[in-house]
Amino acid sequence: MRTIQRLDSGDAQLLIEGAAAEADAIGVPMCIAITDESGNLLAFKRMDGGKVTSITIAVDKSFTASGAQKATHEYGEASQPGAPAYGIFSAIGGRLMVFGGGLPVKVDGAVVGGIGISSGTPAQDRQCAEAGIKHLMEKKGYSE
Amino acid sequence: MRTIQRLDSGDAQLLIEGAAAEADAIGVPMCIAITDESGNLLAFKRMDGGKVTSITIAVDKSFTASGAQKATHEYGEASQPGAPAYGIFSAIGGRLMVFGGGLPVKVDGAVVGGIGISSGTPAQDRQCAEAGIKHLMEKKGYSE
Amino acid sequence: MRTIQRLDSGDAQLLIEGAAAEADAIGVPMCIAITDESGNLLAFKRMDGGKVTSITIAVDKSFTASGAQKATHEYGEASQPGAPAYGIFSAIGGRLMVFGGGLPVKVDGAVVGGIGISSGTPAQDRQCAEAGIKHLMEKKGYSE
Amino acid sequence: MRTIQRLDSGDAQLLIEGAAAEADAIGVPMCIAITDESGNLLAFKRMDGGKVTSITIAVDKSFTASGAQKATHEYGEASQPGAPAYGIFSAIGGRLMVFGGGLPVKVDGAVVGGIGISSGTPAQDRQCAEAGIKHLMEKKGYSE
Repeated sequence: MRTIQRLDSGDAQLLIEGAAAEADAIGVPMCIAITDESGNLLAFKRMDGGKVTSITIAVDKSFTASGAQKATHEYGEASQPGAPAYGIFSAIGGRLMVFGGGLPVKVDGAVVGGIGISSGTPAQDRQCAEAGIKHLMEKKGYSE
Repeated sequence: MRTIQRLDSGDAQLLIEGAAAEADAIGVPMCIAITDESGNLLAFKRMDGGKVTSITIAVDKSFTASGAQKATHEYGEASQPGAPAYGIFSAIGGRLMVFGGGLPVKVDGAVVGGIGISSGTPAQDRQCAEAGIKHLMEKKGYSE
Repeated sequence: MRTIQRLDSGDAQLLIEGAAAEADAIGVPMCIAITDESGNLLAFKRMDGGKVTSITIAVDKSFTASGAQKATHEYGEASQPGAPAYGIFSAIGGRLMVFGGGLPVKVDGAVVGGIGISSGTPAQDRQCAEAGIKHLMEKKGYSE
Repeated sequence: MRTIQRLDSGDAQLLIEGAAAEADAIGVPMCIAITDESGNLLAFKRMDGGKVTSITIAVDKSFTASGAQKATHEYGEASQPGAPAYGIFSAIGGRLMVFGGGLPVKVDGAVVGGIGISSGTPAQDRQCAEAGIKHLMEKKGYSE
């Protein structure tokens, strides 16, 4: 039998709060999705003005990051033409996201969930995802 | 050009709060989804213990209620064997939900969004959806 | 080699006009879809107030009627519990529609396309589909 | 509560008329799709000779442009190998279109819908989409 560590509903809320505060600070309304360590949706917030196309992209970035235990931007390099994972962006019905904005959430060395953000540039999305994780870590006293 | 009224992000949060309080009161952790008047996801919360299969069901109940401007349980009667809309439950890739737990949110006579809840019985899901709407109406002073 | 008769773009427009006029007359804004004899979309109109969930349902009713060369309500009987086509409503990813509102368009004994309507009751949808066909037949002098 | 501006059915018809006139002028029969500001289909026309594969492409270009509030050709640059959004073309089940022919429709600074066109080259598709928007703006006296 295995014991799994997983974000709870309060953790998910803190991740969203931290990401939304950063989104407000840079003036880009975002779609923010939180998944558990199994890739299943825990929480979602579309800020006023967040893009309709970003709903699914945010959820899928979080799914990819938590399910693959890897930041989505890391797949960006690996999936370039000629690189080992070329073409992986269309895997799982296109849910495998390979550009910035999806991060695994790690606590005590284990991936306990993911955060996925979309509506800005991939760099902005990633910046807000990092802010979400930082906020959770500080509020709860978790360490990676 | 048409002018449309739509739930904002704060409204969505109040709907979730009201529904989650009722879910706590009856002791059934729920998946709670809020869509705008066009059926697109605005907010989602899976309470600790909410079912994995209920993620999509809650989202699709809310999609159905807002998109069809109708409570999902109303489709339950209309889609029984021999009834006029028999078979509609598999429409839109199976997203058309015909059992209780999805309600349109109406303000000043217009559908401005939807709420969809899943993890309990359809009656429990519907009860929590109603509580979510009641909470929004009271907090914001909206009327149907 | 086979020669196929098919609705043209002008025919499709007349079908929509006739259906929309009937929808206006009964006060129910509709989604109206026209497909060719191969089931592929030719034209679509969502009247102001037509339901979001009805977009796909209207298209799929027209697809079913033209592709199966059969009115969708005829499948309603055949797909009841115990009847020969029970369960067919979930075929083709749920696109096979079994309630009223989809009609094949026949000219000189051949199916040349289909019309699918949704947003009202199945009876209202069917009534508007019939009005669309009647309008086309009269304006163009076609006969079944 | 938010107040949203959205194309109505008459606006959608004007967009199609303007695009179809340009398509006639350049001799390329097109598939023309109009979505509202939430990405949901409002109107569609396949001109006689428009391609079957272009039905979905036109709808998805319009979905992308309205939902992401961005011209589809802008994603073309951002999604090249090595660019920040590389791989985004397979997002949302492949609905995210990254080549020319999809434009958001803006009125008074807000995106109120989208137009998507397919059957020609991306440049021809875009040219017809622009003509559709120009026609709407002139006929209704709207300004961007």
